[in-house]
Amino acid sequence: MTTLVFGHKSPDTDSTGSPIIWSWYLNQIKGVAAKPVLLGEPNTEALFVLDRWSLEKPEIITDVAADTPVVIVDTNNPAELPAGINDADIQGIIDHHKLVGGLETKGPIDIRIEPLACTATIMWKMIGKDMAQAPTAVKGAMLSCILSDTLEFRSPTTTQEDKAIAHDLAKDLGVDISEYAAEMFAAKSDVSAFSEAELLRMDSKEYAVGGKQFRVSVLETTSPAQVLDRKDALMAAMPGVADEDGADQVLLFVVDILQEEATLLVPNDLVKSVAEKSFDASVSGDIVVLPGIMSRKKQIIPNLKV
Amino acid sequence: MTTLVFGHKSPDTDSTGSPIIWSWYLNQIKGVAAKPVLLGEPNTEALFVLDRWSLEKPEIITDVAADTPVVIVDTNNPAELPAGINDADIQGIIDHHKLVGGLETKGPIDIRIEPLACTATIMWKMIGKDMAQAPTAVKGAMLSCILSDTLEFRSPTTTQEDKAIAHDLAKDLGVDISEYAAEMFAAKSDVSAFSEAELLRMDSKEYAVGGKQFRVSVLETTSPAQVLDRKDALMAAMPGVADEDGADQVLLFVVDILQEEATLLVPNDLVKSVAEKSFDASVSGDIVVLPGIMSRKKQIIPNLKV
Repeated sequence: MTTLVFGHKSPDTDSTGSPIIWSWYLNQIKGVAAKPVLLGEPNTEALFVLDRWSLEKPEIITDVAADTPVVIVDTNNPAELPAGINDADIQGIIDHHKLVGGLETKGPIDIRIEPLACTATIMWKMIGKDMAQAPTAVKGAMLSCILSDTLEFRSPTTTQEDKAIAHDLAKDLGVDISEYAAEMFAAKSDVSAFSEAELLRMDSKEYAVGGKQFRVSVLETTSPAQVLDRKDALMAAMPGVADEDGADQVLLFVVDILQEEATLLVPNDLVKSVAEKSFDASVSGDIVVLPGIMSRKKQIIPNLKV
Repeated sequence: MTTLVFGHKSPDTDSTGSPIIWSWYLNQIKGVAAKPVLLGEPNTEALFVLDRWSLEKPEIITDVAADTPVVIVDTNNPAELPAGINDADIQGIIDHHKLVGGLETKGPIDIRIEPLACTATIMWKMIGKDMAQAPTAVKGAMLSCILSDTLEFRSPTTTQEDKAIAHDLAKDLGVDISEYAAEMFAAKSDVSAFSEAELLRMDSKEYAVGGKQFRVSVLETTSPAQVLDRKDALMAAMPGVADEDGADQVLLFVVDILQEEATLLVPNDLVKSVAEKSFDASVSGDIVVLPGIMSRKKQIIPNLKV
């Protein structure tokens, strides 16, 4: 049976590219029939990356049948995976997020989680000398994943390993990192086609803090004005999205990749209190700028207080 | 703060040796202050191994204080770890068991789980070229862990990697594998000092199957008669042990390492039914011999039916 390789339900570049990389490795190097799939529509940056490297857009699936062999990448959180995930035959997990608990496997399997910025970086290490056989498109996907997850090395999640591997890949591919990253971020920043509800859910994870359930959404962009011009409509859409998704509140952080700061929308007193207690911010209007805040994983979630 | 490295609550050779190996690596190679500890009294084989390689017996602890940095080896099961484990600062997990779910970490950490016979084999791979700097005692512990968990390569959990690494280590150390393994197994087989309740808990894990909670105990030995001579007393002790530990039934498999078979004690109709349904065995008396059964992980647990 073909092994399905997939990331989380909101496919960004790493969750789109890493399944492609690992499926290549399984098929071509390990002799295991494998296929990359997606659990949702990829974001605009991921679509740009697929196009740039002439990669086929993987099929989108919504559930996995029991006993299907699967490799999970870029998450270990059952909430970000199909409902039937623990009935699948989980063959491997490759991830760079904290261990959430909840996934169970039928036997001992290969699990590799490392505190690096990007899943593709871990894959590069696991593939080792076989990287020499990787086609250009696989190397291109790998470079794209690293530049995306590190925000071109600006994110505090960036490690020396991510950086060194990205530079190696760029040299090998003849890609100018700054130019290419700017194209990727421009693609990600073009959110004109999305509704407010879609923007609030685009790169979003749920967390429980102080008895409240938050949908913590991040929009990384090089043109924050394009999002902030729609702030009234975005705030108006928040209660409906929170309600549908079983959350108490949506927190939307608009991350300015170039200025290295986040703007948090403040629709009510709950979010005002979160901003003040979590980020020591002084809030007067309906937005607050948080200098230096770029990473949900490293800076937002660990500090979240109600 | 010193990082504590420990395995599970019933320290066998792998759960005693692997913390020693990894603490050496953290201290001497990674420059991280680390200390091996045990969560219980090591079994007689592990004590023999400590003595053989002049290794100090690690301190036994029963709980970890909140925020203590820890590395967990040879398990990922919270039930086999101190109650406060999720309040510790889990820095890493190195294991070769199925993912049980339940451990949570505060951030992304190093997790490495592989379907190999032995934790020490995974460590050998992770340490890589730095193994050249390992002292004799660390290499001796590593070889011992592999021979113990593979039952000198007889267990079906054995992989080519475990075997090749053990042969390399033995050559390097000038150890005759057959002779040394026989000494280890003789040490493990000397259980005269233990009470029946201690024997039932010595190498035991709890599993829920078909609405029943089983304490699945395995005694690996080269002299099964020494255990089976005490079968009436062992069966008499089962209800008390099950009761104290919140289980419905103890299953005791006496694994004959040399004959490559297990003898299951059959004190009642429940166990008779388990034996018949799980292993297609025909049971007449109060024991049943199960040819070829050596591994709880690979052969007993996956087949357990009520």
